[in-house]
Amino acid sequence: MRPYEMSLASAASEIRSRRLSPVELVDSVLGRVAEVEAGLGAYVAVTADRARQAARAAERALAEGRPHGPLHGIPMGLKDLIDVAGVATTASSRVRAGHRAHADSTVAARLREAGAVLVGKTHTHEFAYGLTTPQTRNARDPRRVAGGSSGGSAVAVAAGTATFALGTDTGGSIRVPAALNGVVGLKPTFGLVPRHGVTSLSWSLDHVGPVTRTVEDAGLVLAALTGPDPRDPAALPGAAPADATDLTGVRVGVPVNYYFEHVDPEEETAVRRAIGKLEELGAPPVEVEIPMTRYIQATQWGLMVPEATAYHERTLRTVPDLYQDDVRVLLEAGELMPAGDYLRAQRSRTLMRRHWASMLAEVDVIAAPTVPLPAAPVGQETVTWPDGTVESVSDAYVRLSAPANITGVPSLTVPVGHSRAGLPIGMQLLARPLAEALLLRVGHAYEAARPAREPAPAA
Amino acid sequence: MRPYEMSLASAASEIRSRRLSPVELVDSVLGRVAEVEAGLGAYVAVTADRARQAARAAERALAEGRPHGPLHGIPMGLKDLIDVAGVATTASSRVRAGHRAHADSTVAARLREAGAVLVGKTHTHEFAYGLTTPQTRNARDPRRVAGGSSGGSAVAVAAGTATFALGTDTGGSIRVPAALNGVVGLKPTFGLVPRHGVTSLSWSLDHVGPVTRTVEDAGLVLAALTGPDPRDPAALPGAAPADATDLTGVRVGVPVNYYFEHVDPEEETAVRRAIGKLEELGAPPVEVEIPMTRYIQATQWGLMVPEATAYHERTLRTVPDLYQDDVRVLLEAGELMPAGDYLRAQRSRTLMRRHWASMLAEVDVIAAPTVPLPAAPVGQETVTWPDGTVESVSDAYVRLSAPANITGVPSLTVPVGHSRAGLPIGMQLLARPLAEALLLRVGHAYEAARPAREPAPAA
Repeated sequence: MRPYEMSLASAASEIRSRRLSPVELVDSVLGRVAEVEAGLGAYVAVTADRARQAARAAERALAEGRPHGPLHGIPMGLKDLIDVAGVATTASSRVRAGHRAHADSTVAARLREAGAVLVGKTHTHEFAYGLTTPQTRNARDPRRVAGGSSGGSAVAVAAGTATFALGTDTGGSIRVPAALNGVVGLKPTFGLVPRHGVTSLSWSLDHVGPVTRTVEDAGLVLAALTGPDPRDPAALPGAAPADATDLTGVRVGVPVNYYFEHVDPEEETAVRRAIGKLEELGAPPVEVEIPMTRYIQATQWGLMVPEATAYHERTLRTVPDLYQDDVRVLLEAGELMPAGDYLRAQRSRTLMRRHWASMLAEVDVIAAPTVPLPAAPVGQETVTWPDGTVESVSDAYVRLSAPANITGVPSLTVPVGHSRAGLPIGMQLLARPLAEALLLRVGHAYEAARPAREPAPAA
Repeated sequence: MRPYEMSLASAASEIRSRRLSPVELVDSVLGRVAEVEAGLGAYVAVTADRARQAARAAERALAEGRPHGPLHGIPMGLKDLIDVAGVATTASSRVRAGHRAHADSTVAARLREAGAVLVGKTHTHEFAYGLTTPQTRNARDPRRVAGGSSGGSAVAVAAGTATFALGTDTGGSIRVPAALNGVVGLKPTFGLVPRHGVTSLSWSLDHVGPVTRTVEDAGLVLAALTGPDPRDPAALPGAAPADATDLTGVRVGVPVNYYFEHVDPEEETAVRRAIGKLEELGAPPVEVEIPMTRYIQATQWGLMVPEATAYHERTLRTVPDLYQDDVRVLLEAGELMPAGDYLRAQRSRTLMRRHWASMLAEVDVIAAPTVPLPAAPVGQETVTWPDGTVESVSDAYVRLSAPANITGVPSLTVPVGHSRAGLPIGMQLLARPLAEALLLRVGHAYEAARPAREPAPAA
């Protein structure tokens, strides 16, 4: 196995035992970038010189016997909403031309402290306000969408051009591209990972989290990210993940409504097979009814639209033409929204959180499809369901993700198979707030029990 | 001194020593109601039979030696936004015709438990959305406004038709009428007193608190009201007031801006004299600069207007004609407010809270006028300041109160004198969140040091 194909945990183990040096690993990943990036468009900017320099420093630290953790010398991509000192945070937008971040975001600083090496900044749907990431192509099939808005991060991890990456998730933007590219994505509990220095889409819905090749890797990255931050008003005290694999007695909630409606049969089959696997591992399924489903879409949009417009207020007036049309239209729509609609969305969220808390008192995790359909062909705007319903692809991709953003509960997506066309299918696991350790435990146990996965695929 | 003239503390002491019975006290207050209520209009409804029955029950409890606290057998008025089981909560509005509360509000239940006797429900500006309480006249001068929206409560306490009362305060509605009628009013820290069962005007600005004749009385009522309530999402754990009178070392912040601008010279003189009295008691004045004053009005209205409209959404559509014109216009205006303005008000509040916290780290209390002018003549709409500025009377009455609603800090108004026309003047004391004990201590020390007050005045 070539170094760029390794999981974070494997690479860390090789580095620890001195069979692999950070310089070799970073060179391998940069070589992979040279080979496939032109066809993928995952990166806004590759910081190769900086990466080689950081790899040499990591190597020196090892030679000098300085203590190091599992992220030491590991190449990573950061979604280009995340500030890194001295580098532009473009948000994949012309609005940010000439930008240069003066300080690290909290997460960038924590990962640097942990020894991770920045390969580059990955593409986002402009300002994270969309589900496709048009600059980037799916790692499995370049004719298909990467998903978004953290499309660059998911594609880089899937294609071997980063060993792990960070994304952000306001309505599914970590989980959707992770599922569409066959990798693991974790949207943590609201507030668990500080957002200071990360460009905001909707401050009451935004989350930062890892995109990785395995659940174990997601736990390793999360451990480096968590911890309180006085500069993020929503930040919570830290929680540490566990990696046990015993699922005896874990109650798996299987939704009888919402999550399996208007879902591609191949998605449903793969997810139900994975739920069967969890049962074999000792975790019995329990039927659950998802509350207030009629209000999910209105609540998500009712919160996101005005908050996004508030963030862009100034540039929307001064340089509206620098935005892509789809994003500008959304931002302008926010100016027309009445305060009453925003208030209704806030009240609906409060009720929805209470109802979800009751539901999550009865089960430990909920298992469901991450997205209703695999990666759509580039340019396909809508999907038609068997009952004749027509839905936009974007709405479909948000639909099953939004409840975790509205309620703030953590959600992990893990690959559970492929469609007949070879496209990845993801299963979403949801749990009580701050139950990341449980999510990672269930995901890891599933991963360990399933047939060995192929290495990072060719683009 | 006749029983209806007594402070709560005096009446409680007389009852404790068996020199006064609850039945005598309640009869005295009901006699006072018969004498003056027709000219005052403080009450929506007087529950005389119920009061006499409760007084007899209180007397029996005493005779049987059952333990009792300071509120046992004390006659009270409750603002008619506060639910009492079996009685209408009219909110002084035709919209509530035929209303009947099925359960006690948390505060009504706590006061009943403490042995207080309901005299009746007091008038509010319709749904608390105004500063005058047009049904009610000032206790000192019937040609002048009572102030509002808790006008009925303040007038009842000032006129001797209740020994204490509860009001609500969204932009000054406890403190304004207390100041205009020469009594004590306390807006506690946001969340300290539960609001379950109290009709909402603006849930992020609403507070429930006591109106009394002395600061000591305010402390006694507050002690019965505080404590956690799972049904009010904003409710905090309880805090107990103290009643020491030593002010040595207490730093009194005196604003160099905002609170003394566009203020009647007689108000300013009386408040500065009271600040001098605090200094004599050992509490040195310290100059403070009030932060973000340009944003106070926009923030108060930006929060209140859409929240009020949200609360009245349904009836505004079904029975708009049942509202008074002034209130209906305000509620309808809220339908036109964009979400962006509400968001800006929420963000402004967050910043203002931080700046106030910094300011209140430097001083212990802030002393300022409660209102910029004494009770205006009924029907006077505007006030013209010496520099030619014209301000509506309502805006003037909200102006100095709103910062404590926006930031949630506690604020106590105490009478500090009279204008040449004999109209009461109030001083407002503000402190850090949950520092009610300190506020009551400073107010009580001032009260104890000043010349003896006259008993409840004739209407």
